[in-house]
Amino acid sequence: MSRPHPLSGYPEWLPSQRAVEQHVLDSLRRTFELHGFAGIETRAVEPLATLLRKGDIDKEVYVVRRLHAPDDAEVGDDTLALHYDLTVPFARYVLENAGHLTFPFRRYQIQKAWRGERPQEGRYREFCQADVDIVDRDALAGHHEVEVAQVMADALGRLPLPPLTMQVNNRRLIEGYYAGLGVDDAPAVMRHVDKLDKVGPQAVATLLADEAGLVDAQVRGVLALAEVSAADASLVDRVQALGVRDPLLDQGLAELVAVMQGTADLACDRFRVVADLRIARGLDYYTGTVYETRMAGWESLGSVCSGGRYDALASDGAVTYPGVGLSFGVTRAVAPLLGRGLLTTSRSVPTCVLVAVASEHARTASDRVAAELRRRGIPTEVAPSAAKYGKQIRHADRRGIPYVWFPAADGADAGVADEVKDIRSGEQQPADAATWSPPPHDLTVEVLQP
Amino acid sequence: MSRPHPLSGYPEWLPSQRAVEQHVLDSLRRTFELHGFAGIETRAVEPLATLLRKGDIDKEVYVVRRLHAPDDAEVGDDTLALHYDLTVPFARYVLENAGHLTFPFRRYQIQKAWRGERPQEGRYREFCQADVDIVDRDALAGHHEVEVAQVMADALGRLPLPPLTMQVNNRRLIEGYYAGLGVDDAPAVMRHVDKLDKVGPQAVATLLADEAGLVDAQVRGVLALAEVSAADASLVDRVQALGVRDPLLDQGLAELVAVMQGTADLACDRFRVVADLRIARGLDYYTGTVYETRMAGWESLGSVCSGGRYDALASDGAVTYPGVGLSFGVTRAVAPLLGRGLLTTSRSVPTCVLVAVASEHARTASDRVAAELRRRGIPTEVAPSAAKYGKQIRHADRRGIPYVWFPAADGADAGVADEVKDIRSGEQQPADAATWSPPPHDLTVEVLQP
Repeated sequence: MSRPHPLSGYPEWLPSQRAVEQHVLDSLRRTFELHGFAGIETRAVEPLATLLRKGDIDKEVYVVRRLHAPDDAEVGDDTLALHYDLTVPFARYVLENAGHLTFPFRRYQIQKAWRGERPQEGRYREFCQADVDIVDRDALAGHHEVEVAQVMADALGRLPLPPLTMQVNNRRLIEGYYAGLGVDDAPAVMRHVDKLDKVGPQAVATLLADEAGLVDAQVRGVLALAEVSAADASLVDRVQALGVRDPLLDQGLAELVAVMQGTADLACDRFRVVADLRIARGLDYYTGTVYETRMAGWESLGSVCSGGRYDALASDGAVTYPGVGLSFGVTRAVAPLLGRGLLTTSRSVPTCVLVAVASEHARTASDRVAAELRRRGIPTEVAPSAAKYGKQIRHADRRGIPYVWFPAADGADAGVADEVKDIRSGEQQPADAATWSPPPHDLTVEVLQP
Repeated sequence: MSRPHPLSGYPEWLPSQRAVEQHVLDSLRRTFELHGFAGIETRAVEPLATLLRKGDIDKEVYVVRRLHAPDDAEVGDDTLALHYDLTVPFARYVLENAGHLTFPFRRYQIQKAWRGERPQEGRYREFCQADVDIVDRDALAGHHEVEVAQVMADALGRLPLPPLTMQVNNRRLIEGYYAGLGVDDAPAVMRHVDKLDKVGPQAVATLLADEAGLVDAQVRGVLALAEVSAADASLVDRVQALGVRDPLLDQGLAELVAVMQGTADLACDRFRVVADLRIARGLDYYTGTVYETRMAGWESLGSVCSGGRYDALASDGAVTYPGVGLSFGVTRAVAPLLGRGLLTTSRSVPTCVLVAVASEHARTASDRVAAELRRRGIPTEVAPSAAKYGKQIRHADRRGIPYVWFPAADGADAGVADEVKDIRSGEQQPADAATWSPPPHDLTVEVLQP
């Protein structure tokens, strides 16, 4: 086998990079559990029919078939395919297990998903998502729209990433406002507004007039709302100053204010929430609050954490399950930073101590020291060969192991102790494997400037 | 969408079952890291050519293709397929990243794999494996064959599973012994010996005589060796008593004794190691020590943890990478127990405290209590509705949450404190969210008798 090459769109990491990714995943999980979310996993595959229900992504689905399936086996509804997100499998899981779940059901799910997209930075064919959702039967209380934002604010604020801004909008606010303007086809208008960042207000105004048939005052009203962005209660004044009155608008505005107020205490240097009334993507699917999240300096990646409220996340005909959730694109946010070497870690391997080996004959003595240190929770390995001590120390250094342990020679006087060397400082001291403890060796991760 | 049904061969778990599986995965990872193994992940797919190099499993491979791939696209060497184990992707990873790894390279890998097998208990189409391997360049020291057994002994001995027995054998021992008997075609003889459990010694004797062409004395010698099984140093005497002399036999025997001695201290009620000279499966592929592991009362599952030494785990033509490793079939061992309700957990959700809500108006006060408890690491959620307290307590009970917190009423006298109720004992006490701590709420898992 000649040296293989990476597959485009399938990021893989060296052990020290994987340690950073694992640190992010652990931190997410810890925070989700701190908020009382239970973890689940779903299988990697779903029947094609389940995956294609959301109509617009069929080109990206990967079908899975046995290599030796019969030649005439056709792709059908029960053909299996890899899931492209965690929401569709979660909806299926809720329907399948509804009788065994307690509602409102709170779950997090951290798993890979697959899409046959053209690979580029921030877009991968295999990627990891971290989702939280709350789903209830028949009706879902509005405060859960605040809660999922709180959970993600808490979770993302703890991550070693560039500062994140969550932009929040509300479909009821937009629909109510449009209705107040006398605009009928809200979804069509939203789709045009979604192009604002790409083509600018001038071009969107033309689209709204020519394609959506809006009159001048309506176009001005739609664009004026899209310009509203606020990180505090001034939001209400700014929307009301636009002079449109509608009860649905009022409801949506109150819901949006609740999300802002509910997350205010969680704002930190690394995470903030703003109401941004031009956020349109997702309004087509969602029925209440919608969320998108951008990373400072990395806006080209698009949203790294998105979601919203669905009035019908799932339905089996008899019962409908409304839900609200957020999905953080772990790979989308982390892979570009890792790939460019912008996340550094204090620890490239889990090992804290390398126990030196005086001779192959004395390996068992080194094994005993290692077992004793491990018994007390200290990650330890034994040197791979009984080379000269200088070479064993260099091996520890190359692997990023901070301490080297030298067992006292077999048959040494009772007064002769083991010794341990901190190879960063060069300091060497007598030590007893039954009592010695290193300073905490927690992994820390730092973000560097590009 | 009507209620969906499970897919055969793709196990999924309810949250409380997933908590058990997660507990197992966490424990494995902690032990692997304690032994200085670094975690890596590889992508789920490999080129078909990489996967088919090991010739005998091609029928089980799942090919992955975009739904809208061109109709005339044929399955070829660069078609992607899901990996069926973690060894083949690991070998590819080593070759691809050799320039960035420090050798001997120690890694663990805990991931899903997929095989198109006929589903049955212990055999799944999607399953999780936990692998440890040590790989070196050009030559691999023999003590690593002891080490991987130590790591798995330590890891598996900590798991909440029925008692496990690791059976160890050594290809050099077998080959040397057969050579000493004057038997040439060792692999053919091994394949017949592998049928011992299925067809019995009589039938194997016939196969050895008729198909492998062994004479009577050779048949008796082969069967006598296969009967040797020992948990201690009596192994040496028993093998030597068979009267066969060969230098390769001596080397293999010494290697096997080293594995036995190296793991003796790690034996416990839940895990032991025995030398079992009838273990033949794998001897065909491996070149030194081979390992299999059986679970008491669950022998029908086959081996739940297998592996061995490869002299050429990977090779790029210029450099060869010998390795030794073990793969624990997490799903194979855990799924049958979970599926039959034989693993119980002390904790069905991560939540420790449910903060009650006096009225929707007072939800913010409950949110503040929850935030304060979380700040101190106590997993907390807020009641989903301001129902009567009795109903909120029942909600906590149904979810398996041990404590319910009652915030003091808004505007209550300064002397009136919050209260917390242990709903298992019924005891209710004044409490302060800034200082109250529950007893440790660690998840424990217990194995029940079938």
